[in-house]
Amino acid sequence: MRHRTSVAIVGAGPAGLLLGQLLHARGIDFVIVENRSREYALARIRAGVLEQSSVDVLESVGLADNLHERGLVHDGIYLQHEGVRTHIDFRDLVGRTVTVYGQQQVVRDLMAAHDAIGSSVYYEASDVTPSGVETPRPLLTFSHGGESHEVEADFIVGADGFHGVCRTIIPATEISVFERNYECAWLGILADVAPSTDELIYALHPDGFAMHSMRSTTVSRLYLQVEPDDDIANWSDERIWDGLHERLGTPGWTLNEGPITEKSITPMRSSVASTLSYGRLFLVGDAGHIVPPTGAKGLNSAISDVAMLGAAIGEHYDGTSTRLADYSRRALSRQWKTQYFSQWMTDMLHTPSIQTPKDLAAFRYRSQLGQLEFVTGSQHAQQTLAEQYTGLSIE
Amino acid sequence: MRHRTSVAIVGAGPAGLLLGQLLHARGIDFVIVENRSREYALARIRAGVLEQSSVDVLESVGLADNLHERGLVHDGIYLQHEGVRTHIDFRDLVGRTVTVYGQQQVVRDLMAAHDAIGSSVYYEASDVTPSGVETPRPLLTFSHGGESHEVEADFIVGADGFHGVCRTIIPATEISVFERNYECAWLGILADVAPSTDELIYALHPDGFAMHSMRSTTVSRLYLQVEPDDDIANWSDERIWDGLHERLGTPGWTLNEGPITEKSITPMRSSVASTLSYGRLFLVGDAGHIVPPTGAKGLNSAISDVAMLGAAIGEHYDGTSTRLADYSRRALSRQWKTQYFSQWMTDMLHTPSIQTPKDLAAFRYRSQLGQLEFVTGSQHAQQTLAEQYTGLSIE
Repeated sequence: MRHRTSVAIVGAGPAGLLLGQLLHARGIDFVIVENRSREYALARIRAGVLEQSSVDVLESVGLADNLHERGLVHDGIYLQHEGVRTHIDFRDLVGRTVTVYGQQQVVRDLMAAHDAIGSSVYYEASDVTPSGVETPRPLLTFSHGGESHEVEADFIVGADGFHGVCRTIIPATEISVFERNYECAWLGILADVAPSTDELIYALHPDGFAMHSMRSTTVSRLYLQVEPDDDIANWSDERIWDGLHERLGTPGWTLNEGPITEKSITPMRSSVASTLSYGRLFLVGDAGHIVPPTGAKGLNSAISDVAMLGAAIGEHYDGTSTRLADYSRRALSRQWKTQYFSQWMTDMLHTPSIQTPKDLAAFRYRSQLGQLEFVTGSQHAQQTLAEQYTGLSIE
Repeated sequence: MRHRTSVAIVGAGPAGLLLGQLLHARGIDFVIVENRSREYALARIRAGVLEQSSVDVLESVGLADNLHERGLVHDGIYLQHEGVRTHIDFRDLVGRTVTVYGQQQVVRDLMAAHDAIGSSVYYEASDVTPSGVETPRPLLTFSHGGESHEVEADFIVGADGFHGVCRTIIPATEISVFERNYECAWLGILADVAPSTDELIYALHPDGFAMHSMRSTTVSRLYLQVEPDDDIANWSDERIWDGLHERLGTPGWTLNEGPITEKSITPMRSSVASTLSYGRLFLVGDAGHIVPPTGAKGLNSAISDVAMLGAAIGEHYDGTSTRLADYSRRALSRQWKTQYFSQWMTDMLHTPSIQTPKDLAAFRYRSQLGQLEFVTGSQHAQQTLAEQYTGLSIE
């Protein structure tokens, strides 16, 4: 089966689905191809905090109604060290907020929007292969329901994650990947219990980082820093709660426990491709870069890429600008600023690995306390944090 | 020979001499004992940038006249990356400035002030030994001009640098030292040539950090990042200038060369004692902590310690407060914030050592560019930098 479209999108995660909506709003046709099932995408537990900048993008295409109805607007976060919890009030500091709204919910809203306009979204596609991106007529081939498909497009967009196929078709001479591994991982749980806090708590404790996040008024999301090679089998529910009580505890505050419905360990990594474009192929979101989770920039960076690319493709068809040629440079410029922020948050809040020499670890921990004392005591430092946490401008 | 005084100060560097002046202003008598000669102290080439906070302290005891007459007030600094130079205007950002005025000049002014009031300052003392600091009657003994001296004091202050004797008399069970070594060093030169810039330039270049500082309108001070084990013998004047041109160069700007009158390599280190007091002994400045030079915090931290300690000793004799017992905690709290800033500046502006794995070095460098792009583009980040560079409050 042969199709003709303007933009062939690989990946029906939040990035690919959102790009489709942004193109549709500009009257540009598209096809989305995804190798996983619709149910898989809906069930994936991922990020949960949307920048103000991301909310603005979703609003611009009328996709923020559910978000505004069900999302939890947070005016700030808490930073905690040595048992002292300090509120960083983004609204006071920079007049912006963030919204707690799970990635799954964003995906559900986007799927509903695609259903409503009858988009061509092929789930459970196999042998997805982009080609000819150096030519004026790229081709995306795949199998779906036993049938072979060929999509002829003006552009192919890789929204297929870090292990996706799209980045791999760029010749090795034309791309490199910058990487940093961290000496720690996050053990994350979902628990059926009302959050014990109104806003997220990021805590540095001698035993390691801990975080109290949430998904809704009835579901808590909590994290513990663990060694990268740790096994979830080592962590009974009781041990997890003990660690959370110890690291998040402050006088007079109670952490409420509830049934743990999901637990897993995720290593932390920074990874940034040297380019997000090659010929008529463009990469967005995880296909181009990965951030450590501290500061919640993964989904938000994907939304920022998509907003930039969607606008540039729109202008390409309008003939009003040549910003498409500049997409990679602009998206990477914002991404590296975001990488800096994510590393800054990560390094401030995580204890060194047990493999770090004891003397250096002691220096680093004491230095992190100095950093936290400075940040929680300085209006300017708090504004800088707030500016980054609520999202840099998307230009 | 036996003396009786209120405060026995070990070390006649800027910290010890300034403390004497602060005590004198409060009518408290003191003795200063120094193992080096007066000429040595005057000839030492050290720091050259005074925080607004430090200028305020010197002003408070009438010691800022020469500084105001001959010092160069700088409204800000330049941050440079990829050949782009950005002015960070402290005066605009936080209404504060810094003053370029060499440590030698500060020392000269302080010596003149001590000469004017006829202070007891013993240079070239040997066998300087503090004792009895756990008792109400500490003793400082030393030899001077062939004569033995015993100073009975209420307090002994160690202003004798990181390798001084005072810190070493604190029992090992009562003190530890937090340390971080950096993977780089600074090659510094003094050159008899008018500075090619009106304010300091801090530059990140793929070859490493470079800095253009100054001592006066006719003397330039310039730095190049080198490996910590490099030898100054490897660096001819020509090689130094070549490196400076390469790393500091921007289109349309010329770096003027002149005769190099001094050159040396200094390794970079962070070091902070766990306490700055033990019984009736107090440590100030380098005797308690060392910062890497990026951000010029060494002398300024010493002045901040001395201002806190001088005020607390004054209040002790007035009977108006017990802040002396709290000196170590307060001074270390500010010091760790300063350590954070110095590390932040250092890590932002220095390339990784040649021993860093190539992949990680590439990530880090690209990440530093992202940081510099963020900082030079964000009003809040610039204000945060300005707040720290011009000096945190001394409380």
